[in-house]
Amino acid sequence: MKALVLEATRELSLRDIELPQAVGPRDVKIQIHTVGVCGSDVHYYTHGRIGPFKVEEPMVLGHEASGTIVEVGADVTHLKVGDRVCMEPGIPQFDSPATMRGMYNLDPAVRFWATPPIHGCLTPFVVHPAAFTFRLPDNVSFAEGAIVEPLSIGLQAAKKAAMKPGDVAVVIGAGTIGAMTALAALAGGASRVILADVVGAKLKHFAGNPAVTTVNVTEQSLADVVANVTQGWGADVVFEASGNAKVFETLLDYACPGGCIVLVGMPPGPVALDVVAMQAKELRFESVFRYANIFPRALALISSGMIDVKPFISRKFSFSEGVKAFEEAAAGHPEDVKIQIEMD
Amino acid sequence: MKALVLEATRELSLRDIELPQAVGPRDVKIQIHTVGVCGSDVHYYTHGRIGPFKVEEPMVLGHEASGTIVEVGADVTHLKVGDRVCMEPGIPQFDSPATMRGMYNLDPAVRFWATPPIHGCLTPFVVHPAAFTFRLPDNVSFAEGAIVEPLSIGLQAAKKAAMKPGDVAVVIGAGTIGAMTALAALAGGASRVILADVVGAKLKHFAGNPAVTTVNVTEQSLADVVANVTQGWGADVVFEASGNAKVFETLLDYACPGGCIVLVGMPPGPVALDVVAMQAKELRFESVFRYANIFPRALALISSGMIDVKPFISRKFSFSEGVKAFEEAAAGHPEDVKIQIEMD
Amino acid sequence: MKALVLEATRELSLRDIELPQAVGPRDVKIQIHTVGVCGSDVHYYTHGRIGPFKVEEPMVLGHEASGTIVEVGADVTHLKVGDRVCMEPGIPQFDSPATMRGMYNLDPAVRFWATPPIHGCLTPFVVHPAAFTFRLPDNVSFAEGAIVEPLSIGLQAAKKAAMKPGDVAVVIGAGTIGAMTALAALAGGASRVILADVVGAKLKHFAGNPAVTTVNVTEQSLADVVANVTQGWGADVVFEASGNAKVFETLLDYACPGGCIVLVGMPPGPVALDVVAMQAKELRFESVFRYANIFPRALALISSGMIDVKPFISRKFSFSEGVKAFEEAAAGHPEDVKIQIEMD
Amino acid sequence: MKALVLEATRELSLRDIELPQAVGPRDVKIQIHTVGVCGSDVHYYTHGRIGPFKVEEPMVLGHEASGTIVEVGADVTHLKVGDRVCMEPGIPQFDSPATMRGMYNLDPAVRFWATPPIHGCLTPFVVHPAAFTFRLPDNVSFAEGAIVEPLSIGLQAAKKAAMKPGDVAVVIGAGTIGAMTALAALAGGASRVILADVVGAKLKHFAGNPAVTTVNVTEQSLADVVANVTQGWGADVVFEASGNAKVFETLLDYACPGGCIVLVGMPPGPVALDVVAMQAKELRFESVFRYANIFPRALALISSGMIDVKPFISRKFSFSEGVKAFEEAAAGHPEDVKIQIEMD
Repeated sequence: MKALVLEATRELSLRDIELPQAVGPRDVKIQIHTVGVCGSDVHYYTHGRIGPFKVEEPMVLGHEASGTIVEVGADVTHLKVGDRVCMEPGIPQFDSPATMRGMYNLDPAVRFWATPPIHGCLTPFVVHPAAFTFRLPDNVSFAEGAIVEPLSIGLQAAKKAAMKPGDVAVVIGAGTIGAMTALAALAGGASRVILADVVGAKLKHFAGNPAVTTVNVTEQSLADVVANVTQGWGADVVFEASGNAKVFETLLDYACPGGCIVLVGMPPGPVALDVVAMQAKELRFESVFRYANIFPRALALISSGMIDVKPFISRKFSFSEGVKAFEEAAAGHPEDVKIQIEMD
Repeated sequence: MKALVLEATRELSLRDIELPQAVGPRDVKIQIHTVGVCGSDVHYYTHGRIGPFKVEEPMVLGHEASGTIVEVGADVTHLKVGDRVCMEPGIPQFDSPATMRGMYNLDPAVRFWATPPIHGCLTPFVVHPAAFTFRLPDNVSFAEGAIVEPLSIGLQAAKKAAMKPGDVAVVIGAGTIGAMTALAALAGGASRVILADVVGAKLKHFAGNPAVTTVNVTEQSLADVVANVTQGWGADVVFEASGNAKVFETLLDYACPGGCIVLVGMPPGPVALDVVAMQAKELRFESVFRYANIFPRALALISSGMIDVKPFISRKFSFSEGVKAFEEAAAGHPEDVKIQIEMD
Repeated sequence: MKALVLEATRELSLRDIELPQAVGPRDVKIQIHTVGVCGSDVHYYTHGRIGPFKVEEPMVLGHEASGTIVEVGADVTHLKVGDRVCMEPGIPQFDSPATMRGMYNLDPAVRFWATPPIHGCLTPFVVHPAAFTFRLPDNVSFAEGAIVEPLSIGLQAAKKAAMKPGDVAVVIGAGTIGAMTALAALAGGASRVILADVVGAKLKHFAGNPAVTTVNVTEQSLADVVANVTQGWGADVVFEASGNAKVFETLLDYACPGGCIVLVGMPPGPVALDVVAMQAKELRFESVFRYANIFPRALALISSGMIDVKPFISRKFSFSEGVKAFEEAAAGHPEDVKIQIEMD
Repeated sequence: MKALVLEATRELSLRDIELPQAVGPRDVKIQIHTVGVCGSDVHYYTHGRIGPFKVEEPMVLGHEASGTIVEVGADVTHLKVGDRVCMEPGIPQFDSPATMRGMYNLDPAVRFWATPPIHGCLTPFVVHPAAFTFRLPDNVSFAEGAIVEPLSIGLQAAKKAAMKPGDVAVVIGAGTIGAMTALAALAGGASRVILADVVGAKLKHFAGNPAVTTVNVTEQSLADVVANVTQGWGADVVFEASGNAKVFETLLDYACPGGCIVLVGMPPGPVALDVVAMQAKELRFESVFRYANIFPRALALISSGMIDVKPFISRKFSFSEGVKAFEEAAAGHPEDVKIQIEMD
């Protein structure tokens, strides 16, 4: 089977590799159509590791995928050959304590595509559990299906916030995850999202949205904007999606009394937390690790038009141009929110 | 002071009446601009009572109001003369157990406009606590400000549901409250609202909304639509906004396992509840009594464009035509969602 | 294999029957020690059915069991031969939507011991998923282990109530489930349980508990007691554990504004619900179907002494007296809270 | 009026001082019986300030009080002369946004006893809002009434944790607040509290409680104990009640996937937070600022025997020995959990 294989740091090749193709009774086999390039894929490409996860053997990249079912296992009833689908990439042990408590994303046994040593999906065919394969509504394209994965992180964040209708939300960081979180916050109940970044180009994607106030923090005080929008009360929810440790110096200031701060971004080291300031407003912190039970919600929101992800799909490359797609993604053009690869 | 006074059942007059005008230190005085006609106003007009609340003395009607501040009390800091505002009509005892628990709407001491024996606001000037008077954002009209009250009931219902982003919601009943609930559910996280009624004309207001599926239950099975939209799983939230006891025969069928049913409509007598069927899906029931801490949220959602109430403001009458406005409202034209009265 | 087999209504025999004994890789085999007799077992014995579940083939009874592990499957790591355990009797499809959402008890595919056509555990050896088999702490007896199942229903009810520390709880009905719910409510945060029944003998088990106020409703007004204890505010949580439709006539009266009513009992037909009265206090209703993720919690509470179930284990019979145990249970002596059968 | 007055740092005198005694229509006047000495009182005594709150004028100390009503305002209905009561010491603006949202403790306008420049209650008579004055049940002593204030902080922490029945809780720090939090956690649903401190003497108060595992962390690894009790899963809730920044180095390790950490202690400076480790278990952080709507719950728990505070009332001093009481408290004997002053 051809696949986009990460051989070692900065060494990517499109080549044949042996991959399991046996379809178990509760599995389906999918012909891949579109795969998004994720920051984590790029990070493995450029650094060979993410925290404790180190690429020690050649590994197929890719975990944001959509495609078409070509074979179904004997016990599968809710899917059939020909169904257009997208796939949730992290498979837990189904009878584990975490799964049975509804948080299978936290199961230590999770096998996640393109997280060493598990192969990803940048290859023409994959076998996957039917339970983690979701039919695309007719009006949802393969490209949209392949962006469900990063959108799901934003939706998990919005779910964790336990938003109430009309909440004012701040989103700090307008990269891919920040952008997806802003969309999720609006779909999840926000009356307004105040979206902040240091790079103006990233904010432009939201320029036309009357419910989004963009703040280039090199030019404007985020604290002032929040105070102005909320008449001094503070935002109900603050999503930290930058992963920048410096943001924590002022992060608590943006939240209202009793408000919630959701930690989505991943700072490279410990950050400084002012516990007494947090207590003075009885703030709640929530944190996000991927998602659980979100894919069907993401698809429903895209299908009904409540979330429009199309403006965030920046560029497409063919499978044979896969290496180039990664080089472009690694270059980090601020205009690129999401680069995708289409199978030939 | 001129006012629209309900003298007795079916007897309404525009006449002078003595009303208190003293402005306390935490009060404001407002020149009324627009007042919506509510179903409860109409019900007092046509029946002289609602449950235990009986009109025994002449009573000024009206509780959905917006206007302009003309005087502020000595201790009021967040409002000033000239501010365009709307008012929350139910004033609790502020140091009561219910208020201190955040549910002042449930305080037995609440004094609510146009609920006997409390006068309403269909009069040129009213005095009101500043704490229950909310500034209209610049892009929110007086007409929109005056529809915040019924919208708040819908938002209270959506808040009680504790919706998660992407929920599928069913709303049963497309009268004013049902319509407001449908808007609130979409703003509050729904990916789709399935809106059902027996009167096709009421459903037409949502015809162009891609996230709303309208169901005329005289022509189509609501159960089938829900099953189709949710692939047999059921809706996450079902809002009962019809007040029709017959709806309860099938109400539980529309909800998914672990789902929520929010009781917004007020059936005239007891309804039949199948406890065992409720248990088999571990359903949760929530109920709504007016709203608490919702007005600022409603204004924010209207201002940002997340909720568009303009199509639901059907017709306007002048204050001098006030009696005719009530007659039209009492006639119950299905095209009328909200009739409003503008002061001269 | 010997087993206590329900042949047909009122026809029970202790005889040999073929039962599957193959131990899969994620299973364990348990030598049964103690099995409690449940109201549902008795109901199958006396009526041959419960709602849609009808005994059409001979069926082994029993689902409240403890025992000792005699064999473990190849992939089982958290249990070993010789472990004293109790077992959760309802096995879902582990990759189903309900299981992945943390509510596996609502999975339509659940196979539950002694619910037709699934055999129960009144037999010397059973094979069971390791994931649903829980080690007994050293200070928890087999008898206590076998009462974990009904206690778990009470704990599920207390969990659903989302109790806060110091809540006043009413429990209506002091049968086995009511008694377990009262224990669970106290362990789950109640400052006081007001326990009501029409049979004085059932209330006696709680006579010495200073945190329980017992109310024989044939002698005393429950409404008066609730008003007295709560100074007129009402109880934070009301657990309906009688299954008596008449209770619903006054059920809402006992709850405080914003309070919660948990439906645990199963009335044989629809009950009358006063929606407007429910709304006037914005009550929440929760409902309970068995339990999910509760067994480890029950064991921990028994082991630490926070719940003492020993006074509720009324009488023990040997396996060879199994038929007699059922006859005694069917007689419904009010002193019997829980009758158990010990294997020979 | 005689009072215990803090003149300046380390300068305390029992002397006459002018205090307002006018009883408003919603107030009561109380003859003080018992006042507990709080760590914050002691800190003002020894340091003259706590954070931004600086003692710049002579200030009466004391905020943990019980007594007897000697006068009631014209509008007070739920209290009468002679009632034994305890008082909640922080009075908000009742019509503020925070109060109306149920979190009056976060209202910036709160006037809190013995927080500069507000006088405390170490004086024979005080005037107080009836809404913040709570009748003692007959079996609750003045001493118990005066410890309701610190217990309420523990209960607020347990409430914020949203505990479920059977949770395993860790409490780090066994000072007064840690002790109160441990009691609250057990009353609030914990099956077991693992209580850790570096001072063995503080742990001894819990020696006889079978549901409390004490850990002297100078002798034993808390991580090992947690792993052992929870079979490696981690604690459901971790209460940080030490205020020690070093604790944060390992704090996240004690919590289970999806668990909650409640920040009760107040570290003097910022602490280091490992966001990625928090995300890997999707932990939730809650924080506590005093309490809201807790006093009646505390009284109910003491009255029913669910919480026994008596062992934690260490020593009593008379009002005339008030200065000595503060010196003893300032000495910080580990055996002293709570020192109280009784009026002469």
